[in-house]
Amino acid sequence: MSPFADRMQRARAVMAEEGITVMLLSIGPELPYLIGYEAMDTERLTMLVMGPGDSAHLIIPELEAPRVATQSPADVITWTETDDPLDVVAGIIGDGQRMAIGDRTRSRFLLGLQERLPRASFVSSSAVLDGLRVCKDRTEIEALRAVARAADRVAERLGEITFAGRTESEVAADLAAMLRHEGHETVEFTIVASGPNGASPHHEPGLREMQLGDAVVLDFGGRLHRYCSDITRNVVVGDPPDGYAEVHRIVAEAHAAAVATVRPGVQAQAVDRAARDVIQQAGLGDRFIHRTGHGIGLEGHEPPYIVAGNETRLEPGMAFSIEPGVYLPERFGVRIEDIVVVTDSGVELLNTSPREYLVV
Amino acid sequence: MSPFADRMQRARAVMAEEGITVMLLSIGPELPYLIGYEAMDTERLTMLVMGPGDSAHLIIPELEAPRVATQSPADVITWTETDDPLDVVAGIIGDGQRMAIGDRTRSRFLLGLQERLPRASFVSSSAVLDGLRVCKDRTEIEALRAVARAADRVAERLGEITFAGRTESEVAADLAAMLRHEGHETVEFTIVASGPNGASPHHEPGLREMQLGDAVVLDFGGRLHRYCSDITRNVVVGDPPDGYAEVHRIVAEAHAAAVATVRPGVQAQAVDRAARDVIQQAGLGDRFIHRTGHGIGLEGHEPPYIVAGNETRLEPGMAFSIEPGVYLPERFGVRIEDIVVVTDSGVELLNTSPREYLVV
Repeated sequence: MSPFADRMQRARAVMAEEGITVMLLSIGPELPYLIGYEAMDTERLTMLVMGPGDSAHLIIPELEAPRVATQSPADVITWTETDDPLDVVAGIIGDGQRMAIGDRTRSRFLLGLQERLPRASFVSSSAVLDGLRVCKDRTEIEALRAVARAADRVAERLGEITFAGRTESEVAADLAAMLRHEGHETVEFTIVASGPNGASPHHEPGLREMQLGDAVVLDFGGRLHRYCSDITRNVVVGDPPDGYAEVHRIVAEAHAAAVATVRPGVQAQAVDRAARDVIQQAGLGDRFIHRTGHGIGLEGHEPPYIVAGNETRLEPGMAFSIEPGVYLPERFGVRIEDIVVVTDSGVELLNTSPREYLVV
Repeated sequence: MSPFADRMQRARAVMAEEGITVMLLSIGPELPYLIGYEAMDTERLTMLVMGPGDSAHLIIPELEAPRVATQSPADVITWTETDDPLDVVAGIIGDGQRMAIGDRTRSRFLLGLQERLPRASFVSSSAVLDGLRVCKDRTEIEALRAVARAADRVAERLGEITFAGRTESEVAADLAAMLRHEGHETVEFTIVASGPNGASPHHEPGLREMQLGDAVVLDFGGRLHRYCSDITRNVVVGDPPDGYAEVHRIVAEAHAAAVATVRPGVQAQAVDRAARDVIQQAGLGDRFIHRTGHGIGLEGHEPPYIVAGNETRLEPGMAFSIEPGVYLPERFGVRIEDIVVVTDSGVELLNTSPREYLVV
């Protein structure tokens, strides 16, 4: 059985268990997961309607019909520029169903369906799909390995980039070109956070010129065969700022402690705790202002979240980032990030490029 | 008054007219339009809460706080990794309000708010903002002019690209590099649809190698200061295929007829009709399988839609594409697209690069 047919069958089984009679999926990772087709994120509705019963319909704008792979297991229904696609969807479903709707589906479409189907109830499609998607199958793990290797090859080439006297934006463009060159099909993000900007975890690269004494956080990723990479490494331009080597050592220790915790049966929050303990014991607990990690797959961020309070027990096939960081306002930041997969007995690190900071 | 303060004030006035007591905005164009800040599209909620009353709160993940411009007119509330941001939002609002919610807000967040606020009612934020956003102010028209000029400069350089013997993907990468080089801050799309692929309006560039006798549709755009460009031109590799010159002539005539129709007071559908009449009279009506155009601004596609049935009357400041096309399955496609703005008495073409097909 193809991985898609297998996933579709398991999704239908969960729907039955949960008493969900119809599932509606639009933009986001659910469609590629189930049928290998990704909806364009536009105002024109694409929607997979699973159910009622065994039926499956894929509603698409007529002008996109040539894009849709013909092996789709759903009956394709096209709508023209003067049709109302929500009327088409509501007509297939009928009122009174208990429905799951894709997480990322635009609110506008959900409101339109609620208006047309006043007796229907809606829950998030997470109720059906999160439990399946969180454990990656063999096809998915191979895809994550391939894209992680591509990101590693970029990390190993950071020494080729000129930092001193150039802007964050220029270095971000270099990273994007290297991500593509090393095999990514799309570039999703290239954070270059230099000097004080390093203290902003989601800094957008700007016109700051890097200079001697700057520490720089480099966090980048893209997609290959739709699966995501995400890696963070650190460089310093010339001599590191005061205290930098020590902070980097603490973050590396926190990272290693978290990795060492990963095995089946451990709670997700225990991995966060392991990293956080190291940083707290070093007196920097209030400078580690985010969770330790996030799941990764068809989405850059997805369950399981490696965060306090998440009692989910790790299972083989779960894939996530481990990325502790320390952020010192107005001075610098340090973050070290790898993707790991839970194995039958422990952990596989998908990123293996050197974690030490590089002097450039 | 800054354009942002002016837009905010007008949005509040429409809310009052419509009896909407709270507006909730997350990802998408509404936040940049009102406060000049764009939410990251992630699982971490960012939400502007306008109301009840004169209050305005911007709810953001703590780790993104350093990104948020401090001149935001809203009170910033950060939530930490172990908080539930929907509880924070629901707590500010209280139950029973009549709310507008951003079109693109993830369905998951809307469902979560409906659960927490069972007596609230929700409509799309379009009810408040579409009427404001559809007519661009001076700042916006200047931004659209600048980004259209950048796209024109790329169109004028198509002759520098090698097509024969190269893949669509390679040419798409060239276009992306040229878009950046000519001033775009981001590249949004680069459609390269060669030979038979040209008959698919939203074709994704692939590994097809271009050869003598291919017609190629090139449709590309990006952003500058958050505003979008979108232009389509056509090239042929060597001699055009049979009948190509005639089809291109008909599409060019349809394009010109549509442009000539644009002036204040005319219905949007009349512009579509003008283009469609030309193509229908040439016997190709069933090969023009999409609307004639879409509005453009902070979104690549937004109102007004230039489509049959849209009785909206054009007003000065409306900006949209005019892009008739003819698609001959298994042979080729032709599309010609420019962005126009309605002026006090007629139309301004923002794209002015040559519309003739280029022999390469």
